[in-house]
Amino acid sequence: LSILPIRIALIGMGKIARDQHVPAALGNAAFALAASVSPHHEGLPGVPHYASIDALFAEGPAVDALALCTPPQQRYDLAVQAIAHGAHVFLEKPPCATLGEIAALECQAAAAGVTLFASWHSRYAAGVAPARAWLAEREVRSARIVWREDVRVWHPGQAWIWEPGGFGVFDPGINALSIATHILPRPILLADACLNFPRTARRRSPPSWRCATPRARR
Amino acid sequence: LSILPIRIALIGMGKIARDQHVPAALGNAAFALAASVSPHHEGLPGVPHYASIDALFAEGPAVDALALCTPPQQRYDLAVQAIAHGAHVFLEKPPCATLGEIAALECQAAAAGVTLFASWHSRYAAGVAPARAWLAEREVRSARIVWREDVRVWHPGQAWIWEPGGFGVFDPGINALSIATHILPRPILLADACLNFPRTARRRSPPSWRCATPRARR
Repeated sequence: LSILPIRIALIGMGKIARDQHVPAALGNAAFALAASVSPHHEGLPGVPHYASIDALFAEGPAVDALALCTPPQQRYDLAVQAIAHGAHVFLEKPPCATLGEIAALECQAAAAGVTLFASWHSRYAAGVAPARAWLAEREVRSARIVWREDVRVWHPGQAWIWEPGGFGVFDPGINALSIATHILPRPILLADACLNFPRTARRRSPPSWRCATPRARR
Repeated sequence: LSILPIRIALIGMGKIARDQHVPAALGNAAFALAASVSPHHEGLPGVPHYASIDALFAEGPAVDALALCTPPQQRYDLAVQAIAHGAHVFLEKPPCATLGEIAALECQAAAAGVTLFASWHSRYAAGVAPARAWLAEREVRSARIVWREDVRVWHPGQAWIWEPGGFGVFDPGINALSIATHILPRPILLADACLNFPRTARRRSPPSWRCATPRARR
């Protein structure tokens, strides 16, 4: 039995693509890094590079799957194109800018018979699986999340995160929610939310947001 | 070939249940009105009536399906109970109070192998199917909805509609969206929204809300 590697193209070649996706694809025999696409960044030595997804599909090598590593505002349109070309799609987090977008993609991927994989990297952290197993046998009466993440470390110089659709403080916040929804034994339902803007003159306090304790569900 | 009628229980016996669901169930041989549930309203002559869904399942006759005609704030909890009892569920509109609730119900219904039918009555209006057929062959460049509905006619004396989770002006507004999402040939994606509150002293102007023209999609 011999299994051919999945020929994957990276769409978006910014920090996350270079720090995470390139070494992951190169270091795993199940994948072949077939191409990259970015109008802003350069490609990699020896890997075909294109300025747009249209150019990839028109002139590039055959690909089985695309990993969308762009800012979230562009993800929906790129995924629509990828699905229309019959490619499987890996969506970096957050998968889309709105719930309506991801629901529409889900329908399109199902109709096309391709995989749509919305990735949540925080779920793969070492403590998550044990926490999930530990919680599965217990009754959870309340939960509180304090998430400390420095945008200057993970998104240095990346202006898109503060632009409309870029998610701002919600970009790290959904990492926390991706873990909570994975480890808690029952669905979390939003009861209410409050977004606080720091008023200090120099904005030294981090922004914060709060979700009410989920209603008890059986 | 003989097909047994679907034994349906009406949950909630307010105006919509009495005006629409009771005559529809009684007038269709495919359904048998097996029971009704309401802590506030009385039942119908000759139909077993219970004050709660718990009482229905504990003491009532066997039912195949439940029609949830309560205010939306209670819909999720009732649907969870119905699905847990293996009953098919009809959800009056709006199906839930939040998108998270309906997504959770969808998973639970699929796991239990029961039907979850979110009804949108406006989609069955006489003009909708022709409009859908007409639009299917045309390119839609823009759409604008003006929806005139008098809450005093359709929800007389119903305080729940103005309470949190009752949807207020969105209760009629989603009727319009249920038609738009059905007749337009492409998915509608929210770009932005604006909710206007009338400032007139006597609140004579109706509240209004606006969705931006959906982005062009192919």
